[in-house]
Amino acid sequence: MTQTVVVAVDAGGADAGPAEVSRAAELAAAEHGVRVLLFGPASALGTATPNVEVHDAPLSIAKHPDPVRAVRAHPEASVVQAVRAVAEGRADALVAGGSTGAALAAGLFRIKRAPGVHRPALAMRVPAPDHPFLMLDVGANTAVRPEHLVQFAHMGSAYAELLLGLESPRVALLSNGEEATKGSEDVVAAHALLGQASAGLNFIGNVEGFGIATGAADVIVCDGFTGNVVIKMMEGASSALMGAIRGAAEQGARFRLGGLLLRPALRGVREAVDPERQGGAMLLGLRKPVVVPHGSFGARGIAAAVGLAARAVREDLGGRTHAALEAGGALRTREVTSAAPGSLPGIRDSR
Amino acid sequence: MTQTVVVAVDAGGADAGPAEVSRAAELAAAEHGVRVLLFGPASALGTATPNVEVHDAPLSIAKHPDPVRAVRAHPEASVVQAVRAVAEGRADALVAGGSTGAALAAGLFRIKRAPGVHRPALAMRVPAPDHPFLMLDVGANTAVRPEHLVQFAHMGSAYAELLLGLESPRVALLSNGEEATKGSEDVVAAHALLGQASAGLNFIGNVEGFGIATGAADVIVCDGFTGNVVIKMMEGASSALMGAIRGAAEQGARFRLGGLLLRPALRGVREAVDPERQGGAMLLGLRKPVVVPHGSFGARGIAAAVGLAARAVREDLGGRTHAALEAGGALRTREVTSAAPGSLPGIRDSR
Repeated sequence: MTQTVVVAVDAGGADAGPAEVSRAAELAAAEHGVRVLLFGPASALGTATPNVEVHDAPLSIAKHPDPVRAVRAHPEASVVQAVRAVAEGRADALVAGGSTGAALAAGLFRIKRAPGVHRPALAMRVPAPDHPFLMLDVGANTAVRPEHLVQFAHMGSAYAELLLGLESPRVALLSNGEEATKGSEDVVAAHALLGQASAGLNFIGNVEGFGIATGAADVIVCDGFTGNVVIKMMEGASSALMGAIRGAAEQGARFRLGGLLLRPALRGVREAVDPERQGGAMLLGLRKPVVVPHGSFGARGIAAAVGLAARAVREDLGGRTHAALEAGGALRTREVTSAAPGSLPGIRDSR
Repeated sequence: MTQTVVVAVDAGGADAGPAEVSRAAELAAAEHGVRVLLFGPASALGTATPNVEVHDAPLSIAKHPDPVRAVRAHPEASVVQAVRAVAEGRADALVAGGSTGAALAAGLFRIKRAPGVHRPALAMRVPAPDHPFLMLDVGANTAVRPEHLVQFAHMGSAYAELLLGLESPRVALLSNGEEATKGSEDVVAAHALLGQASAGLNFIGNVEGFGIATGAADVIVCDGFTGNVVIKMMEGASSALMGAIRGAAEQGARFRLGGLLLRPALRGVREAVDPERQGGAMLLGLRKPVVVPHGSFGARGIAAAVGLAARAVREDLGGRTHAALEAGGALRTREVTSAAPGSLPGIRDSR
């Protein structure tokens, strides 16, 4: 008999409110066989059930403008309590939507980086039609150094093996040209590093913007500023184009009939690219899995996030990423320590 | 009687070959009433016509890995000769497709920056359905400083007035969050500068990736790395989604009929987002207009680029951008000179 996975869930950040997160917890417990520790205002969360334990934490810091300061100042906040449950071993993983900055800051303070990791990175499965891919960093670090990008490549590869079921995922650096000399200084330097020491990594070089949605790579590595712009743009562009097609189909009886006949097929496309199905972004590089669903997600999306967290625990994502970094010779050594203790230069609330 | 606009066109970079550029020159002369000086291998360009003057320049440096060096080493190259025609006043504007890096480098050496401009920036009209917008920089500078972004904002605003016919275009900084504190250090600093001194500028703050394709701003300002990724992604995402819809419509008789009925409407969407219709990117901030069509463009797209160049001359784009920079107090002063003479830190071939 295997141990039941326990997931700590912050109910304080979702746009739809804590009651929706409570529904998500029930849904996730039923669908994914997990136990949930739910942190939020007990008045809105309802009573505990066999698989959902309610912890009263009425204070939300999701909208706080300075998440790092808010985490330090408010140990009683729902997200901080949820993080502490993970840090203290009462839960195996964290799900915290709608307050990425606070989740990152609290995660770094309490759950801490995995050994040898410079910076954790947010990795997201992007549901491009026909060829989903993994992108990282999508918002944890607005600025990165070459050695960070190298670590992202290895951690992303390990996660893509698990999440996309690929044996040797094609890993690429995002740049403004395919040649090794193209890109910002940091990208060019990372390219050189990955070209030398990439044992266990299927590094295929640079990919351009055009290749993002067209399947040029399985794992696309970039800084968190660019990655955040890209994933939000994918969502925006899809919905804008869908809207334009809908608009075109409304311009006359002929088009209306065509749209009606096509509707089930279009629905298939829309579902395939639906972000809620993905469960959100996985923060790679901490000692325990942390999943960040979008603040706009409803119960279905948040339940998917809990499912993703459970899967990371069961399939030992932490062990896999560490092994990948070690095999690639990319673990941090003392000499290249990137940040002074206590400083969190890359952490901003980016979603 | 007004003077005929003369456009120098490099025929050495187009993927489709110099003969296609020659067809584009004829097309542009007829459609836009310009005279064209055409630089490329005379053997492929055909004989001169009343409106197209052929200059034999068989050497192309479009595929050279180091465009700055190539420009210095090969004064006889087609793009360098075309640039020289503009610099020496024999032509009013330049069109050079397929070798952005060489065009930028030669442009900076010979045509030179407009007074008070730190860095030229590539600006492109992005044909989002229902709300086209201008984006810059889309590839001239992989790294920028805050004062560069400020200049891009003013130059982009002036160009959008002309190109999009807007009176007070909404100008935004691209970032990973809407708040003024979100973004890379440079973006946060640029936001602060634009918030203080933006006379004549309708600065609306930050826009996120989601807002790019959904009409959140008329002018989106960013570094050339991010901008290049974004515009190439727009192209890739559009064609991927179109392909998925096409694929769905092929999955059965019902869908096939629906697709058939919708086809003219879908064609409308596709034409609206067709990059060739835009003519390519405008390099803002040199003493004369430079237009960079995509290397993959055919005669129609290159002719549109010539038309865009002619419009910039006739409507005094240079004077307008200078006036906008001056009104906004954003002209370079000696104290903040950004680059040592002769250095071209931001110039890479990015298309």
